[in-house]
Formats: sequence, C-alpha cells, structure tokens
Amino acid sequence: MKLLFCGDIVGRSGREIVHAELPRLRRDMNLDFVVINAENAAGGFGMTEKICAELFELGADVLTGGNHSWDKSECLEYINREPRLLRPANYPSGTPGRGIGVYSTLKGQKVAVMNVMGRLFMDPLDDPFATVTRELERYRLKGNVDAFILDVHAEASSEKMAMGHFVDGRVSLAVGTHTHVPTADAQILPGGTAYQTDAGMCGDYNSVIGMNKDAPIARFSRKLPTERLSVAHGPADLCAVFVETDDATGLAKRIEPIRMGARLKPAAP
Amino acid sequence: MKLLFCGDIVGRSGREIVHAELPRLRRDMNLDFVVINAENAAGGFGMTEKICAELFELGADVLTGGNHSWDKSECLEYINREPRLLRPANYPSGTPGRGIGVYSTLKGQKVAVMNVMGRLFMDPLDDPFATVTRELERYRLKGNVDAFILDVHAEASSEKMAMGHFVDGRVSLAVGTHTHVPTADAQILPGGTAYQTDAGMCGDYNSVIGMNKDAPIARFSRKLPTERLSVAHGPADLCAVFVETDDATGLAKRIEPIRMGARLKPAAP
Amino acid sequence: MKLLFCGDIVGRSGREIVHAELPRLRRDMNLDFVVINAENAAGGFGMTEKICAELFELGADVLTGGNHSWDKSECLEYINREPRLLRPANYPSGTPGRGIGVYSTLKGQKVAVMNVMGRLFMDPLDDPFATVTRELERYRLKGNVDAFILDVHAEASSEKMAMGHFVDGRVSLAVGTHTHVPTADAQILPGGTAYQTDAGMCGDYNSVIGMNKDAPIARFSRKLPTERLSVAHGPADLCAVFVETDDATGLAKRIEPIRMGARLKPAAP
Amino acid sequence: MKLLFCGDIVGRSGREIVHAELPRLRRDMNLDFVVINAENAAGGFGMTEKICAELFELGADVLTGGNHSWDKSECLEYINREPRLLRPANYPSGTPGRGIGVYSTLKGQKVAVMNVMGRLFMDPLDDPFATVTRELERYRLKGNVDAFILDVHAEASSEKMAMGHFVDGRVSLAVGTHTHVPTADAQILPGGTAYQTDAGMCGDYNSVIGMNKDAPIARFSRKLPTERLSVAHGPADLCAVFVETDDATGLAKRIEPIRMGARLKPAAP
Ligand SMILES: [Fe+2]
Ligand SMILES: [Fe+2]
Ligand SMILES: [Fe+2]
Ligand SMILES: [Fe+2]
Ligand SMILES: [Fe+2]
Ligand SMILES: [Fe+2]
Ligand SMILES: [Fe+2]
Ligand SMILES: [Fe+2]
Repeated sequence: MKLLFCGDIVGRSGREIVHAELPRLRRDMNLDFVVINAENAAGGFGMTEKICAELFELGADVLTGGNHSWDKSECLEYINREPRLLRPANYPSGTPGRGIGVYSTLKGQKVAVMNVMGRLFMDPLDDPFATVTRELERYRLKGNVDAFILDVHAEASSEKMAMGHFVDGRVSLAVGTHTHVPTADAQILPGGTAYQTDAGMCGDYNSVIGMNKDAPIARFSRKLPTERLSVAHGPADLCAVFVETDDATGLAKRIEPIRMGARLKPAAP
Repeated sequence: MKLLFCGDIVGRSGREIVHAELPRLRRDMNLDFVVINAENAAGGFGMTEKICAELFELGADVLTGGNHSWDKSECLEYINREPRLLRPANYPSGTPGRGIGVYSTLKGQKVAVMNVMGRLFMDPLDDPFATVTRELERYRLKGNVDAFILDVHAEASSEKMAMGHFVDGRVSLAVGTHTHVPTADAQILPGGTAYQTDAGMCGDYNSVIGMNKDAPIARFSRKLPTERLSVAHGPADLCAVFVETDDATGLAKRIEPIRMGARLKPAAP
Repeated sequence: MKLLFCGDIVGRSGREIVHAELPRLRRDMNLDFVVINAENAAGGFGMTEKICAELFELGADVLTGGNHSWDKSECLEYINREPRLLRPANYPSGTPGRGIGVYSTLKGQKVAVMNVMGRLFMDPLDDPFATVTRELERYRLKGNVDAFILDVHAEASSEKMAMGHFVDGRVSLAVGTHTHVPTADAQILPGGTAYQTDAGMCGDYNSVIGMNKDAPIARFSRKLPTERLSVAHGPADLCAVFVETDDATGLAKRIEPIRMGARLKPAAP
Repeated sequence: MKLLFCGDIVGRSGREIVHAELPRLRRDMNLDFVVINAENAAGGFGMTEKICAELFELGADVLTGGNHSWDKSECLEYINREPRLLRPANYPSGTPGRGIGVYSTLKGQKVAVMNVMGRLFMDPLDDPFATVTRELERYRLKGNVDAFILDVHAEASSEKMAMGHFVDGRVSLAVGTHTHVPTADAQILPGGTAYQTDAGMCGDYNSVIGMNKDAPIARFSRKLPTERLSVAHGPADLCAVFVETDDATGLAKRIEPIRMGARLKPAAP
C-alpha cells in the first residue's frame, strides 16, 4: 500500500501548497491513503470545519491534531461529528473526539490511524505508551488492519524515538509532528516499522516554526507578553513522508521523505 | 572558506565513524575548518582530555559542548587549559572555560566559534540572545573575523529558529545541536547566514538518541529510576553540515547536509 | 476520631524529633491514627525497611511516600511486602506497592489512607484527579470507611488546592506534602474536608528544604553539577496536622497545625 | 523600624480587606513602612494605575510585582512614571520599570525594597542570585540604607529558602510571594535576616489560589482550554509579615506572621 503523511499545516501558506501539490501527488504517486496533521491549519492555531472540509476535498483521508486541536472552539463540537478528524488518543476520558480510527481505502484495504501526544515538555496527558499498548491489542497488522499509521505529536526527540522503537514491528509508520522541522532520519526500524522523528510542517520556513519572526524573537529575548504571534505568509514548503508497505505484513518496505517548495532542499521518492 | 560542523558525537560508535571518515572528508572536501560538538563523546556523557586530544588529532579545530559538558569532572579543570574546547557562553560568570574563541586556519583566516545554550525546556542559564548580542559586537564578519560559527545547543525548534534569524547576516553558520536528530531544513537565511535546526548526532541511530533503547522506553512508560542509560554501540552515522562562505562577506554561499553511515539516507555535497 | 498527619521526615534530625515527640503526642492527644510521610527519612532520600520499622514502632500506623519513594532500591521489593507503606497511587500500573489501603484502629474503626502525586512541575504520572475519583467510588466515608486521609504530594499550591476542593466532602483530610514548608492555611473546606496545603517537613529548618545550604545555593547560582546535596543535621522541628473527625459523618470537626522544635513558632491544639 | 509586607492582593476581595484593615494596622502597629505585592490586584491579573493609587492612598509605601506585572498593558507605561511600583529586578535589561528603589520613611529612614523572581518552574529571567549580589553591593544595611526588604517572587520552596540564606545578614527581610499560600515558617535566620517562605495572598481562601474553583479543577482534570479563570469574590483573608528591625544593624529583631479575615487561623503580633 502507498501511504503519505503530511506534517503540520501552518496557516494559509501551508494550505496553499497542499492545495497546489497534493492532488497531483496523490495521482502521480498512486497513493492509497493520505493523512495530514492539521493542528495549525487555521491561521496557525487549530482547525475549522471549513478548512477540514477543504483538506478532505483535496485528498486527505484523515486529519490528525495535537496540542493545538482545541484552539478553535468550534472543533470541540465538530470533532464529535467527523470521524476522519482525530485528536491525540491520550487526552483524558471524556475529551471530545477520538484518537484512533480505522478507514477503508478505495481498494477496500483497512488503515488504522492513531494520534498520540508526548508528555516530555508538554501537558501531562495520559501515558502515551500505555494508550498505544491498549490500541495495539485491538488493532493488529494483518489481523484486522492492513496498515497502521501513528502520528506521535511530541516535543522531545528522545520520546519520539522511544515510541518508534516501542511500536516497532506493530505499526507501518510511526512519524513525529509538532516541532515543525522535518528530520533527516527516515529509516525502517529493525522490526519493520517506518520511522521519521518529525515530518516537518507544511508552511513558510522563512519564519520561526511558521510564525512571523519578530514576535518570537522578542519573546525569547524580552520576556514581555506584548508581542502577538502571527502566522507567516511567505511561500511554503510541503513536508511529508511517503511509505510503501508490504501487503503481506503491513510493515514498511520503503520510506522516503518528501520536501518541495520555496526554501528547503527538495526530496522526492 | 570551507567549513564543516559535526553534530554531537555520542560514545564509541560516534568516535569510530568520525575516526574513519573525518580525515578523508577534511582532505577530499578541502576543508579549512572543522568544529565538532563533543558533549557526549565519552560514553554518552561528557568528554575527557584523552578523547578531545584524539578528536583534535583527527582534524577537529574546535570542540563545542552543551548541558553534558560537565559530566566528566576532569573537564572542569581541563577546559581552562584547552582554548579549543568551548562550553556554552551563557553559563554564569565564574564558570570554568569559555564560550567563544577566535582561531586561525592554516591559510591564516580567522574563524570565531561560539557555543550558546537555549533555555526553553532546559536549565535557566543567562539569556542566550543577550550573550550573543554582546559577542557579536566584539566579533564582526569581515571586521575582525572571516567566518563565525554559532553552535546553538537547544531543545526547542522555536528557540533555535529564533536564534537563527536573530543572528542572520551576522554569522556564517548557525547550527543546532542537542536533539541528536539531523533536520532537513538546511537553508541560507535571507541575510546570508547558513542555518540548520540540528546537525544530528554522530552515533548509532538504532537507539534512543544514541542510548540503548530498553532503558529509555522503560523510563518513559514505567517512571521508576531503576533503568540505567547506556550508550548504544551499533554502527553509527556521521551527521554534519558543510558550509562554503563568501570570502568577501564571510556569509554563506552554500550549505549542504552530510550524512553517511549505517542507517540514514546518505547526503553529500 | 483523632488523626495526626506528620509531613516529610527528612533524615536523621527529622527521625530524632519524631522519636522524641510522637509517642507522647500519641498518648497525650489520644490519637486514633497516625500517618507520616517518609519519602526523605533515609538520609534525605527515600526510606529503608529498618527506618520504616522504627517509625511503625514509634506509633505510625501508615507511611506515605512521593517522588523520592524509589531512592533506596530496597524499597522496590520491601513495599510489596509491607501494606502499611504507600506510594503515590497514580504511578503507572505495574509499579511495585500500592497507593491506597484501609486500616483498622485499635477501636476497630476503618481508616482509608491514600497517597497521590501532582503533575504540575513534576513527573507526568497518571492523572491524580482520575485516580482519586476511581478510589473515592470504592471507599466512601461512612459507607465502608470511617475516615479517609489523602496525602497530596505536589509542588504547586494551585494543584493542591484544586485537589482539596475536588475531594471536599468526600475525605476527612486532604493535606499536602513535598514542599517541606508548613503552610498556615489549615481550614475546613465548605464540604467538611480538613485541608492544609502543606504539612511541612519534620527536619532541620535552618537549611534548604532539609539539605545543607551551600550545595543548593551553589546549584542555583552556579549551574554546575559539582555540588552534592547532603541532609542537614541541625535540630529539627516536627510539623504535623491534627484533625478530629465527626464519627457520624467521617468529616472534619477541627483541624489544628502542630509545630514544635528548634526554630518555628510553636503551634499546638 | 517597624515594617509590614502584605502578600499578593488578588482581586476585589483582596483589595477590600486591605482597605478595611491596613489603615488601622498602620496606625495601631506604629508601622514605619508598608510594602504590598500587587501583581494580582486587578481582577486577579496585573494592576492598574487607579488601583495602585488607591493602595498608596491606603498606606502602601511601595508595591511589588511578579510574573503578572504585565497582565494589564497600561503598566508597561505607568511603571516608568511611578517609582514606587516595582517589578522583578531580573527581567532583562530594557524592561520597563525598575526592580529596586530606596525610599524614605516619615522619620527620614531609608528603606531599600527589591523585587526579584525565581526561575525554577518559571520563566527563565536573568539569574536572581547574580542580580541580588549586584544590588547588595550597592545598598548596604547601615551603610546607605536602614532597612532592606526583598520580595522573592518564586514557585519553589527550595529556591526561596536558598535565596533567604544567600542574603542572610545582608537584608532585613526576605519574604516569598507567588504561591498565594502563607507559610508557617517565619524565623530569623542565623545571620539576622527575617524570613518567611511565602507571605500568602490577600484574597479569598475558599478558592484555588484566589480563583473560582471550577475552572482550575476542570483544567487539571480535563486538559481542555475551555475553562476561563475568574477571580473569587468571597470574603478574604489578609496575610502579611510584620518585622521589627534593630536600628543599630538594620537586621531583624522580630518577625510575626499576620493573618486576619474569613477563613484562616488568625495570627497577630
Ligand atoms: Fe504544530
Ligand atoms: Fe503541536
Ligand atoms: Fe548531545
Ligand atoms: Fe545536550
Ligand atoms: Fe519530601
Ligand atoms: Fe517529594
Ligand atoms: Fe500572585
Ligand atoms: Fe506570581
């Protein structure tokens, strides 16, 4: 199966490059399934129903989130109605929405997608390792699903790599999000799981993680709450991870980073 | 000028690949100056005089450090004797060693190297932005130095990118260390500074940031202090950043990531 | 029922004042049940079987712990054998020991004791609010227990007060530990729960939270790992909270701070 | 000299009890100098010029702040005009306002007041220990000032106690603020400095650190950003620290906690 995972869309620039490139990628690369992290799609903060609808239209099968999932309050309600929009599974019980779903490709193959959030340097949610353990007992590659994509929304490289090895052999792809910088460590782990520490963002890389530079620089050096963050609107790069799975096992045969756009060194399968 | 910056050497595997590759790289790429972050060179924790001497022998002109600079207590004394070994400049006044130095290449060009540590999710050292500001008033590209290399040892991608833009146009290269994962965002910023969020480690990538996997996984999921971290000894990848500067300005003409070794997708200029 | 809760015993000084005062307090105040937080009883770091045995001998019915529960590795085994030694209940499942127990007084009344740890500025354990909710469904005042003592081992005053109000009306006493400083906010909350943000330590108050001063001061101002913490051995104060419950409801009729020893203003019922 | 320090005023309830009690306390206790931490005086978040004027009118000689000093944007300008309003001295250079001042009592004695902020579990400002060191070289008890009051606005008890001992013998009073809970550890340190880890708040103690309970409880247990904090308007307690200095040395002869109001056990000299 051919899977694509696009990192955090940040604002309009990010949406524009996804709009410009995704339909073509989907067609040319013969993709079976596309997941996009959309936690910053709406002006850098959260997502809206309208924006999600556009992303589904463009070819996303599932959207994932993160700590910014709740920035737009409409999502607290919308996420209950839209099974294709996930939030981290380890939010406490009672949180709107769901953190895992199983979806069908056009060819009828079943793809589990799960979103989980790290805790190191982040809000103390429920234990992501315990949450993943529980779901991996329910959804097994070539048991009841043909592929399993895990979005590890986390700050620390250590926690992401620990999670990658923790699920190695049990998911098709474990890929990080949240830092908004693509990493160059795409690899197939010893057990067969494709792994990349961070997918990177789809957004303007002439920025501070997608935001105009002045406010973040001022905040780091001045420590006054006077600077408001605003999303950077320069031309974007699209950052994604492509994975081809072995239909016999659901594990990865190949992982390739994809980068295209204004500033980063291009990468393509 | 042709500069190479190698990311955190982690333990023996990291030292071995540097030993195997650096002399050849130095020769074949016609390098003028080599900086290596050595904070994890000694068994994953700190550095020793013996290990530093070997790295200088292999072709390192300057070694930088980070939060692990003090893991081996001999460094508290050694660093005062060795001007080519830096620690983050924003440790409080009175800290052994220095955070910046100016060195000469074989051709007689002057290269400033500075090491600074972020504060987000890290120990609250002195303000890195203020520290950098002060040093950039003393050392100016094509004023009194021909190149300026800044090692930004930090956890958060936001703080590293903010620092990159903060020094843009004033240093030749601002490159991150500490996360032990190379990023794929090498670029020349608008003002002419070469930038990459993290150089990545020289170490075993079949690991959790260079450490054997079991202990970190257990720590994340079990929360008991019973698991001891130990450095991973599998075959390593060398991760570095190559920069070519414009001799007229000291700014960057070209930045290229370098990756070679056991697991990562190779990259070379 | 008459209950006493003593805050974190820190090292030998703390043990000595408990040794000197507790038997008399138990007798003179006609105490029915005594709980002591012992997480720092052994040289400031953890507890041992020998020290716990002494504390039980002196009149402690139950000992609680905290983030230091595992500092002495023998506790990982001992805690499984000793039902009167608790650790925070919200450690992940699989952690040795237990976080709640029900005990009998000499008169045959049943006292539930629970230990829970906060997460703000601490290790991300399981949700303490969810853990408490679950146990409060099992143990109900005047349902199956006559008193309920909750040790809230936490850093932030906000989290402790939130927990106090969260359990108000459902436990006899919610008392904080961990900061090693007694607070002066003893009160009966509107629902009938006795509350004090922190019980304070039993230890030497001419110190930095029970440790000799020089190392902590050096660490805060110098940021080098060269200073080793050592427990302060000056004369101690005993800090505790006394609560009298209403036998009809299990809720509190009265809460009184107790302070006696070398340096603090004395307080007694 | 007779000094009074009142802990963080939180909202209207806090202002009302200060309004009701401070003029009488000032008169009856024959106070020479009054300092109030006002960081939460305006609805729980920051202070306004109008509120500060009222507090000066009521008998405050100096107002201090903390992490909430900038919650009301008017303060960024007002603080430059009002030498009696301080903010933590270790904000980066360029921050509006000042962190230390020397003021005259009616009898002509000089009182230095300094506000400094901790860094443990807080924003990484400049080193408070270095900042204090610098100011203590400029202002010396019985050199150029008759009393020195240090407001240590910090989260961690360890950092506050370390600071207390660090300045012991060099200031008249080192008193903590920020946790909004009074501590019961008032003491004169060995060198003669009066010390209390936290003064406590002037506010409604039937609350979560002065805020209505529901939102903080929901935030701790639900992890959604949907609950807005609002200040609690129930009857308040006033929490303060009274210190009498030795006119010959400027050091403390006596320290007494003061608590009066709706819920806490009263304390008075
Ligand atoms: Fe994001
Ligand atoms: Fe995020
Ligand atoms: Fe490192
Ligand atoms: Fe590091
Ligand atoms: Fe403790
Ligand atoms: Fe503790
Ligand atoms: Fe406050
Ligand atoms: Fe504060």
